[in-house]
Amino acid sequence: MLIVMQPNTTEQNIEKVVNFIKSKGFEAHISKGSDHTVIGAVGRKVIDKRDIELLDGVREVIRISSPYKLVSRVFKQEDTIIDVKGVKFGGGHIGMIAGPCTVESYEQMDETAKRLCECGVKVLRGGAFKPRTSPYAFQGLGEEGLKILREVADKYDMRVTSEVMEVSQIPLFEKYVDILQVGARNMQNFNLLRSLGEIRKPILLKRGLSATIEEWLMSAEYIMSGGNREIILCERGIRTFEKMTRNTLDISAIPVVQKISHLPILVDPSHATGLRNIVPSMSKAAIAAGADGLIIEVHYSPETAVCDGAQSLYPDQFAELFEELKALAKIIKKSF
Amino acid sequence: MLIVMQPNTTEQNIEKVVNFIKSKGFEAHISKGSDHTVIGAVGRKVIDKRDIELLDGVREVIRISSPYKLVSRVFKQEDTIIDVKGVKFGGGHIGMIAGPCTVESYEQMDETAKRLCECGVKVLRGGAFKPRTSPYAFQGLGEEGLKILREVADKYDMRVTSEVMEVSQIPLFEKYVDILQVGARNMQNFNLLRSLGEIRKPILLKRGLSATIEEWLMSAEYIMSGGNREIILCERGIRTFEKMTRNTLDISAIPVVQKISHLPILVDPSHATGLRNIVPSMSKAAIAAGADGLIIEVHYSPETAVCDGAQSLYPDQFAELFEELKALAKIIKKSF
Amino acid sequence: MLIVMQPNTTEQNIEKVVNFIKSKGFEAHISKGSDHTVIGAVGRKVIDKRDIELLDGVREVIRISSPYKLVSRVFKQEDTIIDVKGVKFGGGHIGMIAGPCTVESYEQMDETAKRLCECGVKVLRGGAFKPRTSPYAFQGLGEEGLKILREVADKYDMRVTSEVMEVSQIPLFEKYVDILQVGARNMQNFNLLRSLGEIRKPILLKRGLSATIEEWLMSAEYIMSGGNREIILCERGIRTFEKMTRNTLDISAIPVVQKISHLPILVDPSHATGLRNIVPSMSKAAIAAGADGLIIEVHYSPETAVCDGAQSLYPDQFAELFEELKALAKIIKKSF
Amino acid sequence: MLIVMQPNTTEQNIEKVVNFIKSKGFEAHISKGSDHTVIGAVGRKVIDKRDIELLDGVREVIRISSPYKLVSRVFKQEDTIIDVKGVKFGGGHIGMIAGPCTVESYEQMDETAKRLCECGVKVLRGGAFKPRTSPYAFQGLGEEGLKILREVADKYDMRVTSEVMEVSQIPLFEKYVDILQVGARNMQNFNLLRSLGEIRKPILLKRGLSATIEEWLMSAEYIMSGGNREIILCERGIRTFEKMTRNTLDISAIPVVQKISHLPILVDPSHATGLRNIVPSMSKAAIAAGADGLIIEVHYSPETAVCDGAQSLYPDQFAELFEELKALAKIIKKSF
Repeated sequence: MLIVMQPNTTEQNIEKVVNFIKSKGFEAHISKGSDHTVIGAVGRKVIDKRDIELLDGVREVIRISSPYKLVSRVFKQEDTIIDVKGVKFGGGHIGMIAGPCTVESYEQMDETAKRLCECGVKVLRGGAFKPRTSPYAFQGLGEEGLKILREVADKYDMRVTSEVMEVSQIPLFEKYVDILQVGARNMQNFNLLRSLGEIRKPILLKRGLSATIEEWLMSAEYIMSGGNREIILCERGIRTFEKMTRNTLDISAIPVVQKISHLPILVDPSHATGLRNIVPSMSKAAIAAGADGLIIEVHYSPETAVCDGAQSLYPDQFAELFEELKALAKIIKKSF
Repeated sequence: MLIVMQPNTTEQNIEKVVNFIKSKGFEAHISKGSDHTVIGAVGRKVIDKRDIELLDGVREVIRISSPYKLVSRVFKQEDTIIDVKGVKFGGGHIGMIAGPCTVESYEQMDETAKRLCECGVKVLRGGAFKPRTSPYAFQGLGEEGLKILREVADKYDMRVTSEVMEVSQIPLFEKYVDILQVGARNMQNFNLLRSLGEIRKPILLKRGLSATIEEWLMSAEYIMSGGNREIILCERGIRTFEKMTRNTLDISAIPVVQKISHLPILVDPSHATGLRNIVPSMSKAAIAAGADGLIIEVHYSPETAVCDGAQSLYPDQFAELFEELKALAKIIKKSF
Repeated sequence: MLIVMQPNTTEQNIEKVVNFIKSKGFEAHISKGSDHTVIGAVGRKVIDKRDIELLDGVREVIRISSPYKLVSRVFKQEDTIIDVKGVKFGGGHIGMIAGPCTVESYEQMDETAKRLCECGVKVLRGGAFKPRTSPYAFQGLGEEGLKILREVADKYDMRVTSEVMEVSQIPLFEKYVDILQVGARNMQNFNLLRSLGEIRKPILLKRGLSATIEEWLMSAEYIMSGGNREIILCERGIRTFEKMTRNTLDISAIPVVQKISHLPILVDPSHATGLRNIVPSMSKAAIAAGADGLIIEVHYSPETAVCDGAQSLYPDQFAELFEELKALAKIIKKSF
Repeated sequence: MLIVMQPNTTEQNIEKVVNFIKSKGFEAHISKGSDHTVIGAVGRKVIDKRDIELLDGVREVIRISSPYKLVSRVFKQEDTIIDVKGVKFGGGHIGMIAGPCTVESYEQMDETAKRLCECGVKVLRGGAFKPRTSPYAFQGLGEEGLKILREVADKYDMRVTSEVMEVSQIPLFEKYVDILQVGARNMQNFNLLRSLGEIRKPILLKRGLSATIEEWLMSAEYIMSGGNREIILCERGIRTFEKMTRNTLDISAIPVVQKISHLPILVDPSHATGLRNIVPSMSKAAIAAGADGLIIEVHYSPETAVCDGAQSLYPDQFAELFEELKALAKIIKKSF
């Protein structure tokens, strides 16, 4: 931590700061410039930097060590590759996850999975417990949905991901699901994150609607600090002033995250934009920018979908897009 | 719902839209203007408006009924007054809640509560389970903290509020606490909201960091639709591009919420700004703007506080502020 | 305009609204639903919708005609192709603009242009008048800079773009420059826009840092309504809460704009991100998403650049990127 | 400037950084901590910190001197009081500016000014050149409007403020106006700012819609560095994701600015919220938070106003509000 004193502050103020940080277990290194005295606080204790900022004569306190450790490239240099029963995410491998917003019935999942399987998709998505803004909206099939998801996936030799919403649901998800998804609204549900750190299945951690990249990595750190090292990050749009799209897909998060963390990063263009006709161009942008995978909503019959039909692709539309994406991937020297 | 067709669209397109909404259980009223044909869809069914927007010839779909019902002024015209064992929030009554960020020990709570009691504060706050961004930070005393809080409050005849983080903690909170607080990060933890709808104690519902006022009211609707009608809203700052304050306190949310909802609205100037020296001016602004109460962090010794000391007021500072606030309240014809 | 009345409003209130809009020159069409009465106001007059919203019994007023006309797809269905002396933007043609942030000297421009020309770049950029946040920073070479830009461009048979900051500078720009650039900070400098509507040279209109897509198109409308129909839009990042990149590049603006407007849209990945190592991935994302061109900062020696060296590519780096971009363009069936 | 090296970087990397900053005219002070080596760069040269961030082994570069000087409390400790022919802003004096959005006619101004004068308002506002989002909207009366404004103000012994939009208009404004207003959209029109630095009349500098407090102060610095030291800042709402109010009034900017700058700060509740019924509560909030003044839209007949009638107060409504504001001011020991 660096403590920058105000120009021309008194010796007493400097001394008070030094004593304060020593009392908190830090060593102090003073260095005087032409304008500013800077005090380096060296140590591993946790301290709220605002406590120092409120001392007399202090101009600014700057934290110089990252708050996250296990998720950073400093801790682990090479890319983490998450291997979900043979399907890989990260390190040059692009993974494709597709399926409907919600599990509605066996027929719906079977019909959709069949089409996806023909395209070469190996991971199926589908919600069983749904986080809905309105208490009056459909809330999902629950365990019944997870069972259908598993059964259909096994029929087509696919892996399965679904969103877990609460600590008490984890055992159910361990039973049926290959990748446990944490939704954007739960990115800082710390009890849930802590519990997910204790299991040994991959976690797909979505970025919160207004979460900074640092906060997102801190949430991943929660899971990793519990011992679960299999985390896939997922960018799904942030909230901005622009309202023509549901959210603003932060494509630049891809190279930024890849620089500071070793974890793979996916993009969810369906939730980011909320509209089917923008999904293809955003999918292509994500792959061209270097994303380690995509999670796309596809429904065999979007018009009759119980939810989010408007952002779901038709199977044919998806098939065509997937071919384009494979061609784009080749050019940037990656592959699905 | 109003469906605005594109200028000069064909009769077939209009017919298709009409058939579509009828198939979803709505009646259709067509009205032709000089430029645009507008179709009114009348009915009480739930439908995703994007499904209609994707039909040919549709320019825009406009929802005209509010998504929330029970929380709105249309449903209940007069102000809701929440009465917590004699302490009132709403309808001209301003309530003051104060106390430290976290329960650290009996002595700390006793010392702080004593000072607050002398000032006339009747509701004590203190966290027992803490939502911390870092897995390495202090996570609270748990049930032990709730016990201390209750014991100290009883000694000074105060009511008590504390943050509940998970469904499984609710019984514990029902035992010790008078007002259950839902933190900003849990504003859309729908399982938690649903469970809080089933109990019969007041809920203090904080606004999420990036929640629109509409989403916030929808979260209150979750609780109310479960049968619990005692909800106090709490504005605590929203995330914007400005970084000189931790968040941007949205003071204009006060009159806006009071116009569309009958629920009381509090302001938390401590979390909104994150810095002690801004708390007094923001407290005064909130009261002048018509807030139904405040929740302010006060610690008998902020320098030694385990967390958020930097945003906690000194007891003397708080006492002086409270006097000013009472004088301001009088001018706008309200009272603490 | 549609005026939605509150549920169960009185006949008098409806009558008052009808009289009000008639007094403003509109026709009124009343349609009664089960809950809401909706009044359609038909006419071409300009009215501030808030004036109606303040009348008793009014719930909401909804504008249904676009505020922009000339820039919209409704006005002109086919893509506008801007042809700058043989270099095309739009309608399947992707244009590449490159060059340094600022014109520093003849040598610097000559050295850089030579390298760009070898890669096949046909439009050269370079600032002569610089909008700088600090009054103490370098403000550009002025007319001397424009002269150098022109001379060097002519030597390599290139076209030229540079930023115009004020009405009084327009004649100078008409003399030296092929495309006049309007910077993000001037996107709503309406006097400048109006004057640019009177000339007959292409305008590159950057999106303001916090401008909605609608406001951006309205600024283009200012120019077009003056008679100048050659406008190229340029997305360059919007301001959000995320601070790891200078701005957040709004890639989804590309398909959104292309749907509602016929004008070509470029992307400026250099200013959007502010860091050289993110520029290549964002350039690829933009092309994959369907952008009609790019404007990239390249400097023959970024370390010695007077400004924005940190976001300028090295010529070799650019050459390699350009090859990748051409390959990506082919896959989405466009070409440079 | 402080340059924080990555943990365990090599001696060569440190040496390269030292040589680089020396070549740019800085002195280097090296200090080694347990994890990080920190290099202090001491000197007064201007350098883009990203140039250093791109060097090998650099983790972060931190600027520690403010970019603004003349506007800061370090440069001048006591509050600046702007005295406009006897009307004071700052240092405990609260100034009230009121009037219509636009000058429409002599009668309209006369009628409105008469009412304001009776309430004790001493500064009249009114737009003559209007920045309008749409090219098809009313653009103001121009010089004729300024003449009317002056004439009416003189009749009631009032001072006058109006918005200047372009360098070429400045002489006109010097002739008719007492305070020149710079609108939010022109906050970074640097040519305009520079020219306003050369005149000797007070400037009312509005904050840009998405300007950080630092950028806003830098714009004030532009004017002051030209020699004009009479600047009044004006907060008027920032753009956020919340759409129930036109903008989000950043009330916390008041204490933040007052801490770091000596300049007075006003609030414009009319443009911030865009709706008449929110203006009173926001005005009270601003005064309670310590604002040095207000600028409020008042029209003798808002229903017939040419523009922004919806956010204009009725004279009676304003009169009542002004009395409340005076009472509030007394409590925080200031006065109008």
